[in-house]
Amino acid sequence: MSPFPRNQWYVAAYAHEVGRELFTRTVCGESVLLWRTEAGEVAAMADRCIHRRFPLSETPSRLVGDSVVCGYHGFTYGANGVCTAVPGQARVPRTARLNTYPVKEQDSFVWVWIGERDKADETLIPRSPWLDSPRYTTVCGMEPLAARYGLLVDNLLDLSHETYLHGGYIGTPEVAETPITTEVDEAAGVVHVSRHMDDAECPPFYAKSTGITGRITRWQDIEYHAPCLYLLHSRIAPVGAPGPNADGSDLHAFHVEVVYAITPETEHSTHDFWAVARDFALEDQEVSDFLRENNRTVVLQDVAALDKLEQVIASESAGAQELSINIDTGGLAARRLLKRLTEAGSEARGTNERQSLAVS
Amino acid sequence: MSPFPRNQWYVAAYAHEVGRELFTRTVCGESVLLWRTEAGEVAAMADRCIHRRFPLSETPSRLVGDSVVCGYHGFTYGANGVCTAVPGQARVPRTARLNTYPVKEQDSFVWVWIGERDKADETLIPRSPWLDSPRYTTVCGMEPLAARYGLLVDNLLDLSHETYLHGGYIGTPEVAETPITTEVDEAAGVVHVSRHMDDAECPPFYAKSTGITGRITRWQDIEYHAPCLYLLHSRIAPVGAPGPNADGSDLHAFHVEVVYAITPETEHSTHDFWAVARDFALEDQEVSDFLRENNRTVVLQDVAALDKLEQVIASESAGAQELSINIDTGGLAARRLLKRLTEAGSEARGTNERQSLAVS
Amino acid sequence: MSPFPRNQWYVAAYAHEVGRELFTRTVCGESVLLWRTEAGEVAAMADRCIHRRFPLSETPSRLVGDSVVCGYHGFTYGANGVCTAVPGQARVPRTARLNTYPVKEQDSFVWVWIGERDKADETLIPRSPWLDSPRYTTVCGMEPLAARYGLLVDNLLDLSHETYLHGGYIGTPEVAETPITTEVDEAAGVVHVSRHMDDAECPPFYAKSTGITGRITRWQDIEYHAPCLYLLHSRIAPVGAPGPNADGSDLHAFHVEVVYAITPETEHSTHDFWAVARDFALEDQEVSDFLRENNRTVVLQDVAALDKLEQVIASESAGAQELSINIDTGGLAARRLLKRLTEAGSEARGTNERQSLAVS
Repeated sequence: MSPFPRNQWYVAAYAHEVGRELFTRTVCGESVLLWRTEAGEVAAMADRCIHRRFPLSETPSRLVGDSVVCGYHGFTYGANGVCTAVPGQARVPRTARLNTYPVKEQDSFVWVWIGERDKADETLIPRSPWLDSPRYTTVCGMEPLAARYGLLVDNLLDLSHETYLHGGYIGTPEVAETPITTEVDEAAGVVHVSRHMDDAECPPFYAKSTGITGRITRWQDIEYHAPCLYLLHSRIAPVGAPGPNADGSDLHAFHVEVVYAITPETEHSTHDFWAVARDFALEDQEVSDFLRENNRTVVLQDVAALDKLEQVIASESAGAQELSINIDTGGLAARRLLKRLTEAGSEARGTNERQSLAVS
Repeated sequence: MSPFPRNQWYVAAYAHEVGRELFTRTVCGESVLLWRTEAGEVAAMADRCIHRRFPLSETPSRLVGDSVVCGYHGFTYGANGVCTAVPGQARVPRTARLNTYPVKEQDSFVWVWIGERDKADETLIPRSPWLDSPRYTTVCGMEPLAARYGLLVDNLLDLSHETYLHGGYIGTPEVAETPITTEVDEAAGVVHVSRHMDDAECPPFYAKSTGITGRITRWQDIEYHAPCLYLLHSRIAPVGAPGPNADGSDLHAFHVEVVYAITPETEHSTHDFWAVARDFALEDQEVSDFLRENNRTVVLQDVAALDKLEQVIASESAGAQELSINIDTGGLAARRLLKRLTEAGSEARGTNERQSLAVS
Repeated sequence: MSPFPRNQWYVAAYAHEVGRELFTRTVCGESVLLWRTEAGEVAAMADRCIHRRFPLSETPSRLVGDSVVCGYHGFTYGANGVCTAVPGQARVPRTARLNTYPVKEQDSFVWVWIGERDKADETLIPRSPWLDSPRYTTVCGMEPLAARYGLLVDNLLDLSHETYLHGGYIGTPEVAETPITTEVDEAAGVVHVSRHMDDAECPPFYAKSTGITGRITRWQDIEYHAPCLYLLHSRIAPVGAPGPNADGSDLHAFHVEVVYAITPETEHSTHDFWAVARDFALEDQEVSDFLRENNRTVVLQDVAALDKLEQVIASESAGAQELSINIDTGGLAARRLLKRLTEAGSEARGTNERQSLAVS
């Protein structure tokens, strides 16, 4: 069985990472070649020449106009994956083409679809509109994680770890102390976890970026769209400030939208995309620099812990026990959703493999 | 089957290695967390939080008084392994506790018991009293060995290798030339190998430390307490000096007690603890420095050879042949003992695993 | 089944690599110890002491006259593999001897035979007489390849890759464009691939070494003697120059004999021996230096590509598809030959293993 849900959209890259250089990223174990046509469209195709499996992203492979030329023997492909030239003969075999992937640019991400092609259109890509909205300023990055994606999902669904792993950055005692509420939308595949702290210490991450000096009301509203997109709606306001209005406006608070895209690279490694969008100090470069640096430090604290945990788990027999408590409700719900999606994708995978054999 | 005898005491550390910092060492494949209480007692417990398996030795986990606080989500444990606090709720689950290990300090070592708890008390820990005796001065160290523990047992039970692998340090032609006598105490699990050289070259190790300039009588009396403790009673005297008296006194000789604790880390790696205790030049720092440096060099010669041998053996099919001769009698006897102890421990292991499942 | 043809001669080393130092090289998974006797004969034997498997090439093992002394316990062997001394006893066990390998020096190479000893004499070693002929000047080297040997065979049998992977060195557009002719001598186990370019650009490799400034006639005549020896007879002449005479003389052309010995080290690594022999500018050191450096660069371009390809193939499921076209005719023929030789060798292997058990 596949270790990932396959019939799903995944973030393969930031839009700004893909241009007129051949770019490769492994998604769910598949090596995807990404590049832009001269017209600016993103092309996504298998990063393996059909001839002898040479990676098309590997030097001296290169982009010539809207064609990819393999650096080993010169097999040449268009943006639709069709082979247009081979060495030593004029005739190109009829079946010579690369598998292509459905691909969409949205909200500053490049999303690809790894599973059965005909199910791509019926599946909506979850949104994170803040990332390219003019009403927000965003800092972002991607850190490679040498751990299975489920460990990052566990991590992000239970923010009580902020108090311990991220103390002095985003964690304060109130995060671990305050109980959560959890709701699961099974049909939509979304887990909601909320923690509303009425009177909490303001951690440096928010104190320095907002300028608040005293204690705060701090809301953490998580919205996890399994498998790939994690949203943390973070609302910060001085204690005693008025709450949001009935129409959704909320002038007395600072809002930070923390976005993670969790993309399995292999069974034991993950692309950890992170972005922090704020609705204040929009032009303030110092705030941007601070949030970028601070959030990256926090992400790298997670990466260090999860990389270690991956080693622990990989070295243990499968039956090593865990003990779960209330804080784990969201994480356990996410695991159930992911298991269901993975099982559904695995049936699909068999079908897809037969198809790709027929094509090549 | 376990690759180690499990129902046995093993040296996990020197006593001086364990203090008020969280310290971890893997023994027979189990990660053991070691620390001292404020009262100075050694605590030994599983180095894995029961919640999500995070290593309790890993930063930012920390010791607070006599409690260990997990650096991931703050699960907190006492020296008895019992969990005393968890995040987000006041109630601590009744079953929340870490597996602890029987532990004893003796002869400058910290010994732990990995197997069935109820058999620990009925098993005596072998002694090496010289190491903390005021009548001896000791230098010691520990070298990590990337080889299975059996290769180190083979190595130490057959000292003919001193002539070749340690020539110019502790080896002279007479060691390889002189036949050995071997006795096995099957009930006690002890192998004795003796080599008495009546008229031998004095190697630098003994010449420089004792000041003897001519040829020597050199006795090597090995006492291997399977699996973990190896003693080499080394007696050096100028040729012609009187032998030991009937009452055990032996004023005309120099005595060096070489002690190895052989602790399996994993199936393919070993903790190689070594100590050299002498009954002469007790206050002479130069002699101490020389013996420490010289013996460490010798140990590292073994480590280099055995690390290489591990690679050889790991790359070969299981049936690769050896040819054994007289010098191997002690090593072959040790292998038989270890095989018997391992088989006994493996029955035990099944039982133990069921118990630990019931606990967690 | 063995991944290699076993009943075959393989190049283990250049003759100049083997002297009065113990030298080891792994051939088809077997560690072979090579050294020269005082009379200058090459000895080839298992690089594992029969006692405890210590590598005889490993320090402090050493050569004493015409004997190898193991650095662990001093087991001593003659050039015929027979053990002549062991520690602690005068009697040497009758069966104590190392497996030796049939070995021959020819054409500057040391060839060894890994398979069934009695078939060695009936198998001819293919020739590359240019390498030590006074009528040629040769530069050579060996690059370790972290890829299965079959990938190097594929690479060398299809030179259309020169245009892409070696553009600017030995590749020009005409190589990939010009069709090949392929012939297979099944009985002899030889594949011939020829590509004759009548009017081609002269690549720097030939322009700088021959001094030709215009376009050339370029013949590439490959002769692959499976599994180990690959010959590329390269003929370069200015366009319009007379061809070879009926008697074989060919005064108006430059001849370069490119020789590869392809020796499997392990299932996933290969010794890539390469030599370039020329019949012009025999005394010109600058030409020698240029050809050595240029050809080594070309070989390292192959090594980088094939190392990458090995990683790709090793990470893929066995059924990953390839698409073959006309240029692959020679490579596919070579695969068939190698498969046949491997299957024949594997039957042999069983027999040989029983024999070596009987010996040791």
